[in-house]
Amino acid sequence: MNVTVSRKAHFNAAHKLYNSDWTDARNTLVFGKCSNPNYHGHNYELIVSVKGLIHPETGFVMDMKELKLIINTEIIDVFDHKNLNEELLEFSTLNPTAENIAVIIWNKLRSKIDNNLKLTITLYETPRNFVTYSGD
Amino acid sequence: MNVTVSRKAHFNAAHKLYNSDWTDARNTLVFGKCSNPNYHGHNYELIVSVKGLIHPETGFVMDMKELKLIINTEIIDVFDHKNLNEELLEFSTLNPTAENIAVIIWNKLRSKIDNNLKLTITLYETPRNFVTYSGD
Amino acid sequence: MNVTVSRKAHFNAAHKLYNSDWTDARNTLVFGKCSNPNYHGHNYELIVSVKGLIHPETGFVMDMKELKLIINTEIIDVFDHKNLNEELLEFSTLNPTAENIAVIIWNKLRSKIDNNLKLTITLYETPRNFVTYSGD
Amino acid sequence: MNVTVSRKAHFNAAHKLYNSDWTDARNTLVFGKCSNPNYHGHNYELIVSVKGLIHPETGFVMDMKELKLIINTEIIDVFDHKNLNEELLEFSTLNPTAENIAVIIWNKLRSKIDNNLKLTITLYETPRNFVTYSGD
Amino acid sequence: MNVTVSRKAHFNAAHKLYNSDWTDARNTLVFGKCSNPNYHGHNYELIVSVKGLIHPETGFVMDMKELKLIINTEIIDVFDHKNLNEELLEFSTLNPTAENIAVIIWNKLRSKIDNNLKLTITLYETPRNFVTYSGD
Amino acid sequence: MNVTVSRKAHFNAAHKLYNSDWTDARNTLVFGKCSNPNYHGHNYELIVSVKGLIHPETGFVMDMKELKLIINTEIIDVFDHKNLNEELLEFSTLNPTAENIAVIIWNKLRSKIDNNLKLTITLYETPRNFVTYSGD
Repeated sequence: MNVTVSRKAHFNAAHKLYNSDWTDARNTLVFGKCSNPNYHGHNYELIVSVKGLIHPETGFVMDMKELKLIINTEIIDVFDHKNLNEELLEFSTLNPTAENIAVIIWNKLRSKIDNNLKLTITLYETPRNFVTYSGD
Repeated sequence: MNVTVSRKAHFNAAHKLYNSDWTDARNTLVFGKCSNPNYHGHNYELIVSVKGLIHPETGFVMDMKELKLIINTEIIDVFDHKNLNEELLEFSTLNPTAENIAVIIWNKLRSKIDNNLKLTITLYETPRNFVTYSGD
Repeated sequence: MNVTVSRKAHFNAAHKLYNSDWTDARNTLVFGKCSNPNYHGHNYELIVSVKGLIHPETGFVMDMKELKLIINTEIIDVFDHKNLNEELLEFSTLNPTAENIAVIIWNKLRSKIDNNLKLTITLYETPRNFVTYSGD
Repeated sequence: MNVTVSRKAHFNAAHKLYNSDWTDARNTLVFGKCSNPNYHGHNYELIVSVKGLIHPETGFVMDMKELKLIINTEIIDVFDHKNLNEELLEFSTLNPTAENIAVIIWNKLRSKIDNNLKLTITLYETPRNFVTYSGD
Repeated sequence: MNVTVSRKAHFNAAHKLYNSDWTDARNTLVFGKCSNPNYHGHNYELIVSVKGLIHPETGFVMDMKELKLIINTEIIDVFDHKNLNEELLEFSTLNPTAENIAVIIWNKLRSKIDNNLKLTITLYETPRNFVTYSGD
Repeated sequence: MNVTVSRKAHFNAAHKLYNSDWTDARNTLVFGKCSNPNYHGHNYELIVSVKGLIHPETGFVMDMKELKLIINTEIIDVFDHKNLNEELLEFSTLNPTAENIAVIIWNKLRSKIDNNLKLTITLYETPRNFVTYSGD
């Protein structure tokens, strides 16, 4: 019996979309107002899902208190109220699109969660735009 | 790295559930108040998801501005504030259930989106009823 | 101690915005796609709020089971899966804008709810447009 | 053409997390405030999804009225306003975690839904914690 | 310039509706399944609103960090994962309806918030039922 | 018959909380991580409500198409994807708290909306924090 358990979290951050290999004109052409050099920002909503067997003693796939702690330590403490381009090393050369942020978050969580558990994350950049990544 | 990116859109429309091969009595029996000949309507919420590789230059699976434009041109302009039974050719003989509307929307979008991208749509007929179609 | 208690309900209906004293051209000019003669529709979400004293014996301002029954009998049974222009007498001459629907709903409920209770209703036509009426 | 149709339902219940093979101290250590012997409770939101072929005559994968009736009879009437530990036989020895409740609900529904339809359920214990089970 | 600032919080609790001056039969008649002696429960969502002047130095009506701390200390720590009838002294004789819970919460907060600020709370017992109290 | 009609809109922006009359240390002490000099950001959700009489010819208090246009021109075009501290003149000396942003938005809209209509705005900084201002 494989069950998926999911937990929501959120963080607020500033970012801009920008490819440093391009001219400013091309950045503006491709990324539009998202490339504003003064930054804009979002309330990111994060859903972390882990799939695995139910432990017969606890009835848990994974203790949600433990998952919450991992999310807080690995993600919220790192991303919340930050400027992603300026303050997160990963995005010094990587464009902080929702897709790339999702991959970075997945990688950070993957190393902290039991490998018997399949990990998927969903990241809402706005209530209308979101991305999902499972490591495939 | 395959990431799924999703975008929400919405349209309002009138419809009735009706099989023109059946008697009115059988339509009423099967479809109940949904077969009201004077129509009823819904705020349809649409989620369009495309799954594919992240382009290394942009950090995008697909430019959301482009996806939004395709959704607006192919779906919203066609379905919004319309009577689906009376004004959409597809539903002149096809019952506009949420299932059938989803398949029609998927087909319309499929022809406009890069075939390297897997396409899934979710259509909410009401906040409590929704359908998902991936072309399988 | 005056407390306001609120209950949500919903109904689906078709309508068009139309002033029968005007030419079709003027209807189109003023109401745009909302004047489509073939109708469109909405999932209307209704919030009914009553404000009054807490009964010391029950701890209720009003029994929510009773309020739910009144909403179902007076509103949902009358509006759900209907064409408002064609099937509700009130809108044979009154344009079924969200504002006018709200006033009609308020009047129907007012006559069934204890006059010691202040009545307010909020009606969502879409998740982005809503109206509130308190009988003032 | 396989389409998934989903319907939301909800019920309210009391529960506590408790393993009767353990000491109270260990229950408290593992389950924290969720092991309060006086119980706490939740508004459980349930999404039932069935995947299958669209019937050409109706345009339905499954009649939502029929699915609603099954959910009400098999789940809501059994779980709503109940104490899960005290009043549901299944949880006399099984810890009513969201994971275990989901499996029990899935089993109850599976026996009532056509085996040609794949069944998945999602159960929200709170707006921030939810589980999904597909019988795998 | 009077601005209202609001903050959401939530807690989970078990309760039953019960008037100890009544017979069990009358409790069942009036409160229905809400009077289940084994309790049921809810995810209560709380919105705390304070209205007052903007402080010119901070731009705040009230520091949300301070309001969050007061809500946590006075309400969440007291109500979360509790059985309201059994564990909160206030409800040893007072029926824990949403109305009465709202009044108790308001009173607890009122004594901790500057009297120059008008206080209103909204308490959702379920996503469909909620109450509002302003101390009037 | 005074009815309130409301319309939702949204914009994304970066900001920091900062009083330029204070030392950096005091800014950090009072505003915490919100004072990050590199900025953070939000998805701001805006609800604009106007209250007035229903026009007998249209059934509208105010044409929502017109209100949408005013919101877009006066607010969204000015605030969306901007750095509020750096790019909006109003916040060169005024701290862009939710309270102050709400007052600025209200003032911008007030001058464009008929004075017979009472104007109220609600601004969500996050799904958990929001402010309301009516010009009182």
